[in-house]
Amino acid sequence: MKTNTVPNRTKRANDEPRQLTIVPHFLPHADGSVLISCGNTKVICTATIDENVPPFLKESGRGWVTAEYGMLPASANGRMRREAVAGKQTGRTQEIQRLIGRSLRAVMDMKKLGSRQILIDCDVIQADGGTRTASISGAFVAMSLAVNKLLTQGIINENPIREAVAAISVGMFNNTLLLDLDYPEDSNCDADINIVMTASEQLVEIQGTAEGATFSIQQLNQLISLAQKGIRSILAAQQQALKAN
Amino acid sequence: MKTNTVPNRTKRANDEPRQLTIVPHFLPHADGSVLISCGNTKVICTATIDENVPPFLKESGRGWVTAEYGMLPASANGRMRREAVAGKQTGRTQEIQRLIGRSLRAVMDMKKLGSRQILIDCDVIQADGGTRTASISGAFVAMSLAVNKLLTQGIINENPIREAVAAISVGMFNNTLLLDLDYPEDSNCDADINIVMTASEQLVEIQGTAEGATFSIQQLNQLISLAQKGIRSILAAQQQALKAN
Amino acid sequence: MKTNTVPNRTKRANDEPRQLTIVPHFLPHADGSVLISCGNTKVICTATIDENVPPFLKESGRGWVTAEYGMLPASANGRMRREAVAGKQTGRTQEIQRLIGRSLRAVMDMKKLGSRQILIDCDVIQADGGTRTASISGAFVAMSLAVNKLLTQGIINENPIREAVAAISVGMFNNTLLLDLDYPEDSNCDADINIVMTASEQLVEIQGTAEGATFSIQQLNQLISLAQKGIRSILAAQQQALKAN
Amino acid sequence: MKTNTVPNRTKRANDEPRQLTIVPHFLPHADGSVLISCGNTKVICTATIDENVPPFLKESGRGWVTAEYGMLPASANGRMRREAVAGKQTGRTQEIQRLIGRSLRAVMDMKKLGSRQILIDCDVIQADGGTRTASISGAFVAMSLAVNKLLTQGIINENPIREAVAAISVGMFNNTLLLDLDYPEDSNCDADINIVMTASEQLVEIQGTAEGATFSIQQLNQLISLAQKGIRSILAAQQQALKAN
Amino acid sequence: MKTNTVPNRTKRANDEPRQLTIVPHFLPHADGSVLISCGNTKVICTATIDENVPPFLKESGRGWVTAEYGMLPASANGRMRREAVAGKQTGRTQEIQRLIGRSLRAVMDMKKLGSRQILIDCDVIQADGGTRTASISGAFVAMSLAVNKLLTQGIINENPIREAVAAISVGMFNNTLLLDLDYPEDSNCDADINIVMTASEQLVEIQGTAEGATFSIQQLNQLISLAQKGIRSILAAQQQALKAN
Amino acid sequence: MKTNTVPNRTKRANDEPRQLTIVPHFLPHADGSVLISCGNTKVICTATIDENVPPFLKESGRGWVTAEYGMLPASANGRMRREAVAGKQTGRTQEIQRLIGRSLRAVMDMKKLGSRQILIDCDVIQADGGTRTASISGAFVAMSLAVNKLLTQGIINENPIREAVAAISVGMFNNTLLLDLDYPEDSNCDADINIVMTASEQLVEIQGTAEGATFSIQQLNQLISLAQKGIRSILAAQQQALKAN
Repeated sequence: MKTNTVPNRTKRANDEPRQLTIVPHFLPHADGSVLISCGNTKVICTATIDENVPPFLKESGRGWVTAEYGMLPASANGRMRREAVAGKQTGRTQEIQRLIGRSLRAVMDMKKLGSRQILIDCDVIQADGGTRTASISGAFVAMSLAVNKLLTQGIINENPIREAVAAISVGMFNNTLLLDLDYPEDSNCDADINIVMTASEQLVEIQGTAEGATFSIQQLNQLISLAQKGIRSILAAQQQALKAN
Repeated sequence: MKTNTVPNRTKRANDEPRQLTIVPHFLPHADGSVLISCGNTKVICTATIDENVPPFLKESGRGWVTAEYGMLPASANGRMRREAVAGKQTGRTQEIQRLIGRSLRAVMDMKKLGSRQILIDCDVIQADGGTRTASISGAFVAMSLAVNKLLTQGIINENPIREAVAAISVGMFNNTLLLDLDYPEDSNCDADINIVMTASEQLVEIQGTAEGATFSIQQLNQLISLAQKGIRSILAAQQQALKAN
Repeated sequence: MKTNTVPNRTKRANDEPRQLTIVPHFLPHADGSVLISCGNTKVICTATIDENVPPFLKESGRGWVTAEYGMLPASANGRMRREAVAGKQTGRTQEIQRLIGRSLRAVMDMKKLGSRQILIDCDVIQADGGTRTASISGAFVAMSLAVNKLLTQGIINENPIREAVAAISVGMFNNTLLLDLDYPEDSNCDADINIVMTASEQLVEIQGTAEGATFSIQQLNQLISLAQKGIRSILAAQQQALKAN
Repeated sequence: MKTNTVPNRTKRANDEPRQLTIVPHFLPHADGSVLISCGNTKVICTATIDENVPPFLKESGRGWVTAEYGMLPASANGRMRREAVAGKQTGRTQEIQRLIGRSLRAVMDMKKLGSRQILIDCDVIQADGGTRTASISGAFVAMSLAVNKLLTQGIINENPIREAVAAISVGMFNNTLLLDLDYPEDSNCDADINIVMTASEQLVEIQGTAEGATFSIQQLNQLISLAQKGIRSILAAQQQALKAN
Repeated sequence: MKTNTVPNRTKRANDEPRQLTIVPHFLPHADGSVLISCGNTKVICTATIDENVPPFLKESGRGWVTAEYGMLPASANGRMRREAVAGKQTGRTQEIQRLIGRSLRAVMDMKKLGSRQILIDCDVIQADGGTRTASISGAFVAMSLAVNKLLTQGIINENPIREAVAAISVGMFNNTLLLDLDYPEDSNCDADINIVMTASEQLVEIQGTAEGATFSIQQLNQLISLAQKGIRSILAAQQQALKAN
Repeated sequence: MKTNTVPNRTKRANDEPRQLTIVPHFLPHADGSVLISCGNTKVICTATIDENVPPFLKESGRGWVTAEYGMLPASANGRMRREAVAGKQTGRTQEIQRLIGRSLRAVMDMKKLGSRQILIDCDVIQADGGTRTASISGAFVAMSLAVNKLLTQGIINENPIREAVAAISVGMFNNTLLLDLDYPEDSNCDADINIVMTASEQLVEIQGTAEGATFSIQQLNQLISLAQKGIRSILAAQQQALKAN
């Protein structure tokens, strides 16, 4: 809950993103995988190629990308209930995994992918804010690695990924704008926006929420500009990880 | 699925919202209720006062607003599976009800509401696009009616609602901008944005999605301007319904 | 719970049914639909044609009719828990939807219907007693409208509905017999019987329950006679709604 | 499914019930228990005294009786799916256990029982039709044994059971009336009625169903008369089992 | 919970198993069935032949044996919650049914069984310790009866059961070794081991647990020797029951 | 499934365990945590201190240790279904988490731990056989770190852990005995035994399974001896990790 304490960024500037590292090929069994660390937030993202498609695409020749998301019970401060024990995913989990899936589908040419799907898993090992945006940024690399495998094996001949996609959060506290919120900042902001953007600086998703407060259109635009800056640095780190490949 | 057919608005202009009616006191048992009709989309919104609060607010003296959402199986074209039979709410349902709850909480002063919660139910009787935005706009009126009851009965002395809130969708097809999408328009748009805004024209929520496409920041701003126009007309209809009260 | 207060019928005679209206074609997407209002009880009944049959009828050439039932959380006095949130239908819900299905199947010639099923949905918008009997009476009209569509489209050539079916409740309080119980009457009666009867005055279902009391065979027969009277008026209203079609 | 074969009762007359035995104290741990065998139908019925009452009776000083029902997967012809594996009870199961509970509550004086509940379990070991009526008849004895225990231990001083209750099924095939249906008869009858009746020959529950057929009021009365005959023999067997005690 | 009371075996020696009876053909509908009583523990074990195999064996020509386990709510001291009502099987139940399945598969030649599976159900009617070992010993007889049916009907020509299998528990209290634990003994032992062994005295499963204590390798061997003694007597009883067949 | 290929250990001797590393303090939020790697098997084990105890220990002054287990969907070869999506934990998962809990409770003095519980989470990041034994060995270190925290903070004054506990698997293929099985070995062995042992070489749990085969008592003893060797090396690595602390 909001404590109305001013977030005090002593270690990085307000427009400075957190330290980002993307370790490709993190897990041996998945078709593509990374460990993405964004400050103290760490997410394992994997991509699995499945030669089946969902029922609504049968016989269409088109592919699909879908995502699931989870958090280890001890990943956050204060152990969370294990969803497999609770017997269902929370609304928050479902909302996040739907967002990840839509974001990745926005840059995938489903005809070129052909009649197969890519299953994304984003599992948060350590949580300190921004797990959904880190998941999207990491999952893009995992998906790219899986697509590279399809290309290398000659299963598809043309890269179906149109361009890179990445995500970051921005927030507003009083009138201060902050880039790439960690958990204490995220919980105290008046408004917080998650932005998913492509390499060509087109918007894919924008989710702005003002729990208990509101924000103006002008402030929205300032926040988007700030997010653009952060997205650029993530896109660079993604390319680095894919080149290292 | 997207058919790439151009939506052809012959009956209303691109910036013209659908016919809107709000019938207050639609159900006799709820503390507040409306039937909101937005074109062919019809939603029953109710507000129930509950003198308990969720565990995390116990002893805080503060209140809460929460929402649930559902669709009758035959409300849409092609019968949908009943969620009570499936044994769980879909991710989409959960996402929508969380959005409705956040939108209403943004205009509620929880201290003035006091130690009680308002439970919102939005049940879609007939669906033709925009059910989540109609739910927010209608639920605001239902919540206001329930608050009026608390005021009338002297349970609270000061109106805890800070200002009105309403929601509408806007979309982009090729480069055409459209206000208040019906279902065929919504399914064919390149990008579609749901905007929740207050009477003072502050943003509460913005959810922009580009399934299979993307949109620029400039287009985002044009879409927000268009939404503002629609929001104003909904705010007027809400006041009308509350005066009729 | 029973309060042992004598139901006091000041507005209608003990053998007088409640005001009944049946609005056909209430929802645009269903193959057949009505809004049935019986006093303050209001139910939306829809019929959806499904060209599949349940597994046990595959290759039999015979059809099926099945039903689902639900109540809006705010339909009754005191908000009920949403079954989709609880994750399952209550025993009461399942009992009612099984009754609706059996009642409609009793008047349907499954061979003439052919290899398809009719899915009935009864959703209670407002509850004041007698929701299961209103559901049966309304669902018969919705089913008839769906069958008319099959006939009009030439999908079947002969009407598979053998005769009309309707339902009503009767109850006994001390030694007073009451027709068409509303909720306060229903909760206070010593015995309450739901009767489903055809146009030819044959019984389809009879469910008599004496929670905390008992009734004699003579009383049973008096109650059935009373029900017959009510059934006749419902059958007339059904024909009216179908003619208006 | 109905095969329209005439049930051919060579071993017993049409108005002759099946062989009935009730073994009291069948399980050592329950407060009351019986094994009831009705022809080839065998049900273990137990009664457990629980010093808690459901929430709606807290502070009322009144007691409660509730029932659960189950079938062993191999009890019937063709193994049934285990409900614990399916993750939920079927609608049929819930309907039956609600019926058992209501039937027993009809003869229990809840004030004399005091602030405690009796939990009934009816588990079908072998199924050959009439499991719900055998469950009621057997559960009455199990409940009586548990009540005897309460009386013997001086926990209550007055017997709260007003009179005995028993149940039987009757059916109609063409125009032949049959008492106490076994499974092949039950599946082939045009109409089948379950009747729950007290020692004073008052009705507690009557559930008449005509799947795919209908029956007249006159036939209903003939069926009830036939059931009375069967109920009398069950009441005698119950008294026998309780005396043996 | 452990009470540290010394189990005092006055009625049987420490190395003496409980009275064992196996009633074959206990249920008429199953392909094989027994009632096994081991002291006060009573379990109905059934075997159902299913001409389908699990997906992973399709086209393999090989068969399968799988098991389910349950307890009647009133079988133990203190009524247990019905798993069908809870909506899931407990971890203990799943562990036991997996153990039963593995134990029976160990003696079945899946090629000789051919492309079909045997479904085992073990339902505890009365529980006094050792329900899982009694289930295995009884299920072996039920499975043998079902296999005999396949042989008799000429569906298979060669007996696919390699040898008999049986199970028993042994425990240690202070330094006393006990054979075939009843419930009070089982709850008080320092260590308790379930042993599944074949007629040729080979081990199939060994599950040793020292809740809150530990045991040495030497003690393990003494316990296994003691178990061998008990297994031999069970194997004899199984053969007796099968001969009686 | 078993392929009957001889496991060919070219890189390590048959009695040589896999490379083991234990990284303490792997996650910042848990009270104790490690990453344990055993060859290609990697498990994150965490311990969370909870000042509540389960209901059956209320007012007893005694503590508890309990465990949950999970696998990331992409941890193994061939993506596994996410249990949170399936809506329940598999039987295998429940069996493993019960084993982990029992193993840790065997070395914990519950009185000295006092009225609190330690919640263990074992999440498999990468799976190559032996995930349950690695979980136990790693969880012991995580639990020890959490206990150290209680001691350092002065919440308890005496170390409640009696001695160290570790686990390893051993298997038999034809007549070859193998220590610390990886996944291909585990799937091909005739018998495989998981052994949990304390620093004083006492047995805590022994789970021997012969899927489709059997093993002699002599072979069991040879396997236990082999396991002892492996356990000693794990105990040394645990002490190393705790000293590094």
